[in-house]
Amino acid sequence: MGRVGKRTFVYEHRPAIRGWASIAGPKEGQGPLGHTFDAVSEDDLWGQPSWEKGESEMLRQCVEKCLEKSGVALSSVQAVLCGDLLNQIISSSFAARALGAPFLGLYGACSTMIEALLIGGALVDGGYLSNAVCAASSHFSTAERQYRFPLEMGCQRPPSSQWTVTASGSMLLDGEDRDSLAVLTHGTMGRVVDYQITDANHMGAAMAPAVADTIQGHFSDMGREMRDYDLIATGDLGHIGRELLIELLTRRGIAVDQERLIDCGDSIFSKAQNDVNAGGSGCGCVASVLCGWLMRRMEEGELHRMLLVGSGALMSTTSSQQGESIPGIAHAVVIERRKR
Amino acid sequence: MGRVGKRTFVYEHRPAIRGWASIAGPKEGQGPLGHTFDAVSEDDLWGQPSWEKGESEMLRQCVEKCLEKSGVALSSVQAVLCGDLLNQIISSSFAARALGAPFLGLYGACSTMIEALLIGGALVDGGYLSNAVCAASSHFSTAERQYRFPLEMGCQRPPSSQWTVTASGSMLLDGEDRDSLAVLTHGTMGRVVDYQITDANHMGAAMAPAVADTIQGHFSDMGREMRDYDLIATGDLGHIGRELLIELLTRRGIAVDQERLIDCGDSIFSKAQNDVNAGGSGCGCVASVLCGWLMRRMEEGELHRMLLVGSGALMSTTSSQQGESIPGIAHAVVIERRKR
Repeated sequence: MGRVGKRTFVYEHRPAIRGWASIAGPKEGQGPLGHTFDAVSEDDLWGQPSWEKGESEMLRQCVEKCLEKSGVALSSVQAVLCGDLLNQIISSSFAARALGAPFLGLYGACSTMIEALLIGGALVDGGYLSNAVCAASSHFSTAERQYRFPLEMGCQRPPSSQWTVTASGSMLLDGEDRDSLAVLTHGTMGRVVDYQITDANHMGAAMAPAVADTIQGHFSDMGREMRDYDLIATGDLGHIGRELLIELLTRRGIAVDQERLIDCGDSIFSKAQNDVNAGGSGCGCVASVLCGWLMRRMEEGELHRMLLVGSGALMSTTSSQQGESIPGIAHAVVIERRKR
Repeated sequence: MGRVGKRTFVYEHRPAIRGWASIAGPKEGQGPLGHTFDAVSEDDLWGQPSWEKGESEMLRQCVEKCLEKSGVALSSVQAVLCGDLLNQIISSSFAARALGAPFLGLYGACSTMIEALLIGGALVDGGYLSNAVCAASSHFSTAERQYRFPLEMGCQRPPSSQWTVTASGSMLLDGEDRDSLAVLTHGTMGRVVDYQITDANHMGAAMAPAVADTIQGHFSDMGREMRDYDLIATGDLGHIGRELLIELLTRRGIAVDQERLIDCGDSIFSKAQNDVNAGGSGCGCVASVLCGWLMRRMEEGELHRMLLVGSGALMSTTSSQQGESIPGIAHAVVIERRKR
């Protein structure tokens, strides 16, 4: 009845994933997944006078693309659940202003897309909404200058640092669509896990413990293990964080099948691309890879059941300046291809 | 079935409000509602080395007080839905780290407490959670230096400015409790409304249009009018914003009974208190007044059905510096006293 175990939602009516869309910036477009996005912009300002306004415009376009692909009018959207990395989630708020639909603002750092699906799934499954747009965005240039340094400084980035992805993803959940390719079946809530990482250039290490905790919690609640999924995709641990996750899971006695475990931040850039160091990060990373590459693989029949685990590093410049460590959180949802 | 009209959730199982608590700072303690809070701290740092850590500690204590009053162990809490005004909602994230329960981070600016009840109500009503803590906090000194000026500058504040309330409120929703004083019956989602206000010292004007929109939407969805409620409490419009709301509602043809319409930001401070100008504001304003004064009035049998409308101003220092206006959003929930 809606729940299994300690922190897993069961979506009994299996809300349909009626449509999805992804938009990415120029650098992401040049990466190995460039061909899987619905649109790649050559202009990382999306025609706007600032990167922040550009990010918001990218997000708005992504939601509209998702609706267009779904054949649903904006006026029929019952709610937009959305968030981003900027202070007071301005990319989402201003996109929601342009869209005009009811808006539920979320903040889960880079886990936000999955938090939106987790909550949106329950609201649609429970009959509170007949449909819901779940979306998230991030932008390298807005995140870098907010969290780290002015871009003009050209700071060096250590090998463990990650590159905030300029991209967004959007999904339309629909409680009445019976013909969709895929459905949402379960969601597992994350909790805040702190391994006392303090290096803001080592986000994979800050988030990996929360991801391990949520995967373990999900398996325990569901009575499942890794081989029950064709794929487990983490959000943006990067390749160092992915290695740490494998170690953490193994120490907890969870059999890890490395073939089934990918990280969106590790997949979105190639090693040959300059500057990305440990890989991609940002709300838009898992959002765009899910709504691009992964849903394509499901369409092609290659994936039948996948677990998406979005993770966020819970910090601000203020918390770091005040000596706080960087705890993480991870939310998860299960997406299944409908049997035909 | 879970929904009525365009944007109103119906909580068919009427989740119980099992317990609630409020904690306020020294200035709020000296105000007219000082005696209605569960605790008033003489120390606005709550023993911590910074205001930000103090705000987080206040929020944590408020949630623990709520659980204590509810007779529920922290280990039994299924989820904490929570947010605040700080960048990356650090007050909530770090409080959630201390609490250890699953955490769903929300950002609705000053509407966050009501957004938490709106979403938490659906998750409990729908059987996804058997209980949920819904909470929010704000702190004058953390908000002032983040949004406006360093406190040390001693900037003058115009008459329309509001004073961010140092307080927090927490409610425990419980899907199985049949003996609670009150229940949650409905919730109405807000949408982003922009009347092109650009003055960050005139938040009441920025938010009043969204409040009018949500009240009108709620009445329309429900087929109700103002006299169906003993009280309609807005979050933090202040006394100027309240006047604007009355004008906006009247222009929309909604009969306003001023006796039934209060604003928490207008009630929490007295006119004799220095510096508060147009009244209180902040996530903690509606949260602490709801979980203090208003629930007491319900306990005393004075209120039987109330509509809470929390409103948020959707802006950041960056959006204002980039010339953006300040749109608002308002979410609403209905709380009813159980018939005995």
